[in-house]
Amino acid sequence: MNLDDMIMISVDDHVVEPPHLFDGRMPAKFADQAPKVITTPQGDDVWTYNGAVIPNIGLNAVAGRPREEYGIEPTAFTEMRRGCYDIHERVKDMSAGGVLAAMCFPSFPSFSGRLFLADDDRELSAAVVRAYNDWHIDEWCGTYPERHIPMIIPMLWDPVASAAEVRRAAAKGCHSLTFTENPASLGLPSFHSAHWDPLWQAIVETETVLNIHLGSSGKLAVTAPDAPMDVMITLQPMNICMAAADLVWSRVFKEFPTIKVALSEGGTGWIPYFLDRLDRTYDMHHAWTGQNFDGRMPSEVFRDHILTCFISDPVGLQHLDEIGVDNVCWEQDYPHSDSSWPTAPEELHGQAVEYGVSDANLDKITHENAMRWYHFDPFAIRPKEQCTVGALRAEVAGHDVAEHAYSTGRRERSTISLGDLAASATA
Amino acid sequence: MNLDDMIMISVDDHVVEPPHLFDGRMPAKFADQAPKVITTPQGDDVWTYNGAVIPNIGLNAVAGRPREEYGIEPTAFTEMRRGCYDIHERVKDMSAGGVLAAMCFPSFPSFSGRLFLADDDRELSAAVVRAYNDWHIDEWCGTYPERHIPMIIPMLWDPVASAAEVRRAAAKGCHSLTFTENPASLGLPSFHSAHWDPLWQAIVETETVLNIHLGSSGKLAVTAPDAPMDVMITLQPMNICMAAADLVWSRVFKEFPTIKVALSEGGTGWIPYFLDRLDRTYDMHHAWTGQNFDGRMPSEVFRDHILTCFISDPVGLQHLDEIGVDNVCWEQDYPHSDSSWPTAPEELHGQAVEYGVSDANLDKITHENAMRWYHFDPFAIRPKEQCTVGALRAEVAGHDVAEHAYSTGRRERSTISLGDLAASATA
Repeated sequence: MNLDDMIMISVDDHVVEPPHLFDGRMPAKFADQAPKVITTPQGDDVWTYNGAVIPNIGLNAVAGRPREEYGIEPTAFTEMRRGCYDIHERVKDMSAGGVLAAMCFPSFPSFSGRLFLADDDRELSAAVVRAYNDWHIDEWCGTYPERHIPMIIPMLWDPVASAAEVRRAAAKGCHSLTFTENPASLGLPSFHSAHWDPLWQAIVETETVLNIHLGSSGKLAVTAPDAPMDVMITLQPMNICMAAADLVWSRVFKEFPTIKVALSEGGTGWIPYFLDRLDRTYDMHHAWTGQNFDGRMPSEVFRDHILTCFISDPVGLQHLDEIGVDNVCWEQDYPHSDSSWPTAPEELHGQAVEYGVSDANLDKITHENAMRWYHFDPFAIRPKEQCTVGALRAEVAGHDVAEHAYSTGRRERSTISLGDLAASATA
Repeated sequence: MNLDDMIMISVDDHVVEPPHLFDGRMPAKFADQAPKVITTPQGDDVWTYNGAVIPNIGLNAVAGRPREEYGIEPTAFTEMRRGCYDIHERVKDMSAGGVLAAMCFPSFPSFSGRLFLADDDRELSAAVVRAYNDWHIDEWCGTYPERHIPMIIPMLWDPVASAAEVRRAAAKGCHSLTFTENPASLGLPSFHSAHWDPLWQAIVETETVLNIHLGSSGKLAVTAPDAPMDVMITLQPMNICMAAADLVWSRVFKEFPTIKVALSEGGTGWIPYFLDRLDRTYDMHHAWTGQNFDGRMPSEVFRDHILTCFISDPVGLQHLDEIGVDNVCWEQDYPHSDSSWPTAPEELHGQAVEYGVSDANLDKITHENAMRWYHFDPFAIRPKEQCTVGALRAEVAGHDVAEHAYSTGRRERSTISLGDLAASATA
């Protein structure tokens, strides 16, 4: 396949929420209590809500910067590309990067919406979550409906309310829910509890995918307080194998045989070994641990339920059959520093050629799997021939992808420790 | 290569210490304070030391049992095969399993000897460690010197004293030290501190390998208190990637360019992806994190310093070049429940055939790498042709490897939770 003929859908990008998000979306009695953006005397833009201040509004939103200027900055809208928070600019950046469509995880509410877990007033927090989800579906995704896969955030404090929100969203055409990779880390009942069953039931009924993004429990792998941050960056995707193991051996897949869970930003190259390890664990230990999958092996259970994705993964591309080629998607991670935007198509195409990925498999990875999982059909709106890397880039010829004037406002800052980064990344 | 012609050296087995270990090995003034074995009214054999009682003497020593009887049992010597603690019986079990030689990690002191970290009296604890190491080198390994690679435990509270012990052991022909995979988890300075430099200096000077066994920091991956124990078993080897990342990005390899670290029981199939992830982390982030390996990539740093091993690892065998075939060994894990004893040679040989491992590479993995790393030369004592799987098994024809009369004393026990298992496995 030619590079220009690929059709790219990313299942893991990020939106930096614009200040106007809640305007006109909250019930009148709560209008004054909606989260809002303020600018600190130091020049940082921060969200405030319920007495809390959420720093690092950009969460590593560095797209467009030279790598020397990567960091947990920026902390102000003026330090970011407008594509981080402006849907019209975002779509131009996507086109310049050859990307047809994306699914965006939240920033200030955390990947799993756990910011709202601490509220005292559940009626207020439910109103905030519904307003957030309406904005995400109607404005962020609805403005260019062929360019974004909608995804809602849950009401983590209440599986029944979350189930109702899943059904409400599904009626609006949304089949994707972000969740946490380990509720137990948030002080909630674990995946081994029946607590979540009402939510799982709604997910199954509405064919909604449960997306668990790395770090969404607020726990990233920190080996030591004085470890360089490279350690945490290296380990991020590998540690989602903990969530995969937790789920495979849990009651969730046994009780809900059609549920689908996506390991967001989890990578794929570790999976072939992980599947061997699952099956060996079953072989050696099930006689005394009592595990039973009705004759299936745990690697089959994994492939029946778990969706995976990668930014760049040469090892995974060599093992597509073991991982399950219908379970693999591509992701871009715009605007974070692990992203290859705007040259991600070149990176993937080069690896596909190197490892002999067939055109049929490449189509599955780049867009077909994502369209099927998330009930997303951009071709119903935009003719397929206008959805390719080449067609999209031609539309925005001249768009400046190297623009980083947005970073000129960057302030001097002291050295950032791994502890600071972990706290920020999971705030 | 024929199965019978393989020569098998395991770099990770386990000794269950016999009750007489400290007899005659302690200074007179401490003779009464040595750790000792007592039998509880419930029939458990336990080590007692410094007011502490260390349960689960067998630490999962289930060799010979049917899989239905695996567990964190046995808790008494009468519940184990004699080969767990009796060197003469051990050697027969090794021969029956086709294994020429093994390196054994401790049981009751923990894999890293951290039991002695809590002592008030450092003179006493130093005497205990020296007595332990003398017993291990002189009796456990010295009785059949061609059958065991000696390995000492450190004095974790003191890098200088540990350095002296490394030099004392090296003078006795021992070039292997067990350590923890994360000293920070034990409340000690991390791998990023200069605190350990005197120990690293001694290791480098004596060409001693630093072995970090999974779980040796006392931290195993527990996702939730109610998770089934299959979760923890699955994740054990993968989580040693945290230690590998910690070390690769640390000052240790920069300051000590010839130091070698073995990831004991860490497996190998996750490594190709891990190396990609290391290099991508460097590519994307070093400009702002400031990492610098003098022009090398972190994957090269990994291969220059890190030794790996596997029990059974089809994915690893397909990626020997990336991992580095001079850095891979085989391990047996006798007498624990992940071991394939006594049919490990059959398992490895079958996989080597399936994945086309050359005879030269198989020799490296089965014995040549281990001999080089640990300065261990069994052929100087035992003619090489008598060291093969076939020759060893012929010597002990009739030895009963299915004997599990030792488990008939097994008592009924209540269901074991993952929390119990984790506590026990890391006691």
